[in-house]
Amino acid sequence: MKTYNIGILGFGTVGSGVFDIFSKNADIIKEKNCLAVNVKRILDLRKFPGSPAENLITTNFDDIVSDNEISLVVEVLGGEQPAFDFCKQALAAKKSVVTSNKELVEKHGAELMKIAFENGVHFLFEASVAGGIPVIRCLNESFNSDSVIEISGILNGTTNYILTKMTKDGQSFEDALADAQSLGYAEQNPSADIEGTDACRKLAILLSIATGKDVDCRDINTKGIDAVTTSQIAKANEKDGVIKLVAKAKIEKDNVFAQVAPMFIGKESSLFKVDGALNAVSIRGSATGEITLIGMGAGKLPTASAIASDIIAALTRRPSAPFWCEQRQSVASFPAQYAERFSI
Amino acid sequence: MKTYNIGILGFGTVGSGVFDIFSKNADIIKEKNCLAVNVKRILDLRKFPGSPAENLITTNFDDIVSDNEISLVVEVLGGEQPAFDFCKQALAAKKSVVTSNKELVEKHGAELMKIAFENGVHFLFEASVAGGIPVIRCLNESFNSDSVIEISGILNGTTNYILTKMTKDGQSFEDALADAQSLGYAEQNPSADIEGTDACRKLAILLSIATGKDVDCRDINTKGIDAVTTSQIAKANEKDGVIKLVAKAKIEKDNVFAQVAPMFIGKESSLFKVDGALNAVSIRGSATGEITLIGMGAGKLPTASAIASDIIAALTRRPSAPFWCEQRQSVASFPAQYAERFSI
Repeated sequence: MKTYNIGILGFGTVGSGVFDIFSKNADIIKEKNCLAVNVKRILDLRKFPGSPAENLITTNFDDIVSDNEISLVVEVLGGEQPAFDFCKQALAAKKSVVTSNKELVEKHGAELMKIAFENGVHFLFEASVAGGIPVIRCLNESFNSDSVIEISGILNGTTNYILTKMTKDGQSFEDALADAQSLGYAEQNPSADIEGTDACRKLAILLSIATGKDVDCRDINTKGIDAVTTSQIAKANEKDGVIKLVAKAKIEKDNVFAQVAPMFIGKESSLFKVDGALNAVSIRGSATGEITLIGMGAGKLPTASAIASDIIAALTRRPSAPFWCEQRQSVASFPAQYAERFSI
Repeated sequence: MKTYNIGILGFGTVGSGVFDIFSKNADIIKEKNCLAVNVKRILDLRKFPGSPAENLITTNFDDIVSDNEISLVVEVLGGEQPAFDFCKQALAAKKSVVTSNKELVEKHGAELMKIAFENGVHFLFEASVAGGIPVIRCLNESFNSDSVIEISGILNGTTNYILTKMTKDGQSFEDALADAQSLGYAEQNPSADIEGTDACRKLAILLSIATGKDVDCRDINTKGIDAVTTSQIAKANEKDGVIKLVAKAKIEKDNVFAQVAPMFIGKESSLFKVDGALNAVSIRGSATGEITLIGMGAGKLPTASAIASDIIAALTRRPSAPFWCEQRQSVASFPAQYAERFSI
C-alpha cells in the first residue's frame, strides 16, 4: 500500500480538520482506498504548542514546495494572496493542489486548472462551494453527458440562518444578525455574507463549471438580505412560501441569466425546507432532470471531508483536460417575465 | 480525440435512452470529456425497423464480446440471467461493464467487482439505485475518508406516488394503485414495488458499498405498503407528518440495523417533501454530517444519464480495488427503542 505525503497551507479551522481526518480516519481511508496519506508539513505563522501537529509547522513555504516527497498541497489560507502565488508554485513543481478558497477559485480557477493540466497534476476545489455537499463533483461527473440548463441554490449558511430566524421566530433582521453573530454563524464584519457577495462568488464558480467559460462574479446582479423586512416575510407566508437568499441561473445556449437576491420560494420547491445553516443546490439538466443536494455548507469536518475526497481523487486519478476555460462568459440579469416569478 | 466503441445489451427503454444520449449529445460529450463514444452493436432479440439503431442490432452476444474494438458493455437487460453470464464473459474479455440491473448488482455485485478488478477493468452500477441520482458515486467518493453511520431513503417511485396520492387526494390504496397503473408508474403485476422488494434490494446495495461487506436483501426486514390505510395517513397528518415507504439503516461498528417499511416522517425531515415519483437518499457520515440527494429515481433519460456518466468514468479512470467484498455482513432489525420513533 502506497503512502502519499502532503503539505497543508494554513492550520486554521479547516486545515486542522484535514489533519484530524487523516489522523483519526487513517484506517478507514486505507480500507476504502488502499492508500495512506501522511501530513508531512503545515505552513502557518503561528505556533501550536501541545498540538499533535506541533512539529510539522513551518513558516517557510519553500519547505513544502521544494520537498520532493510531498506530492500534493492543500491550500486553506483563504483570500487571493499569497494563496494564488503558492498554488501556482506548487502546480509548477508538479504537485496537485486541493483548495477550499472560493475567492481564489472564482478569480483564477480557469488559469490554475490549465496550469495543473499542463503539469500533469490536479487542481480540485470541491470545498470552495457549499462545504461538504458534493456539488462540483455532481456537476463535473453526473452532468458530463448533459447540458445544465438551471442552477439554483442556497449557498450561504449565515444569511439562511438569519432569514430562518426572522421567519420562524418573527425576529427583525438586526436581532437575527446579532443572534447569528453571538453563535459564531456570522462574522463581526458580516458584509460579504449579508450583501450576497459570498453566494455570488459560489454561483460564478458553479456557472463556470456548467458552461465551460469563465463567469466573473462582478457580472452577476447581486442583492443582499439587509433590506428584507418582517412584513415581506409575512406576505410570503400568506402566499404559502418563504423568503430565501437564492443564487439562481438559467443557461439557454450561449445566454446565461443569473441573479443573487432574496427570492420567494413556494412550498413545492426543493429549497423550501432548507433551513438554518444548511446549504442546498438544485441542478437541472436537459436529460437528467433536476438533482437537489442538501447538506452542511460549512463547518470544520464537513469541509475537511470534501477536501479529503478531493485529495484521494487527485492521488488516484489521471488528470483530465479542464472544460472550464479562460474565455469570458457574459451574464445578463433575468428578463422581467422570469424575474417576476421569484421577486418578493 | 479518442473514440471508444461500446456495445449495449438490451434495446428497451433504458438501452434506447443510452443510444439517444450518445447520438444527440455527442458534441457536449466531446467538449466536456475530450472523447467520443460510438455505439457499435446492440443485443436484442427484436428488430427495430426505421430506428437509427436498426443496423446495429444483433441477436448474438458473441458479436459483442468477441469484438476487439468494443471496450465497454452496457447491460440493461434486467434480471439475473442471462445478464450475469454475459457480464462475466465481458469482464473476462477485459471489457468494462456498466449496468442498471439492481437484481444482478444485489446478488453478484461483490463477485463482479472482483472479476473486473482482476481483469483491469470496471464494473459500475450508478443507475441501479435511484435512477439519475448520483448516490453510489456520493457514497464511494464523498464518504471515502469517513464512516457512514446512517442511510435512509425513498428508493421506490411507484410506492411513493401511491402514498402521495393517498395523502394529498385522500384516495384508498386500491384506487391510487389503479391510478398509478393507468399512468404507467406501476406495472400490471406491481408486487415487487408494493411489497417493498425493490426498495429492499436497493438498500442492500447501498449498505454493501457503505460497509464494504456483502449485505443480502433477504436479511432485511421488509414490509410493503399494501396494508397502509387512509386512517393511518390521517393520524400521521394530525402529528404533522406523512407516511412514506422508507428504506432505513443504521451502522454501528460491525452492527447493521436495517428495515424497509411504511414509516412516519415528520415535517423536519429532508424526506418530508419528497413527493410523487421522486426518489431521495440521506446519507450521514461521522465527519461529513448528512447529505441528502433528491431527483428522478427512474425514467428513460435520467437513468441513461447515470449510465453515460459511468461509461465516461470507466473509459477515463484507472480501476481501483473494490471496497465491497464477498464476506457476508449480518443485518438485524432495529431495536424497539429506535423502531418506535418511526413506526406508524
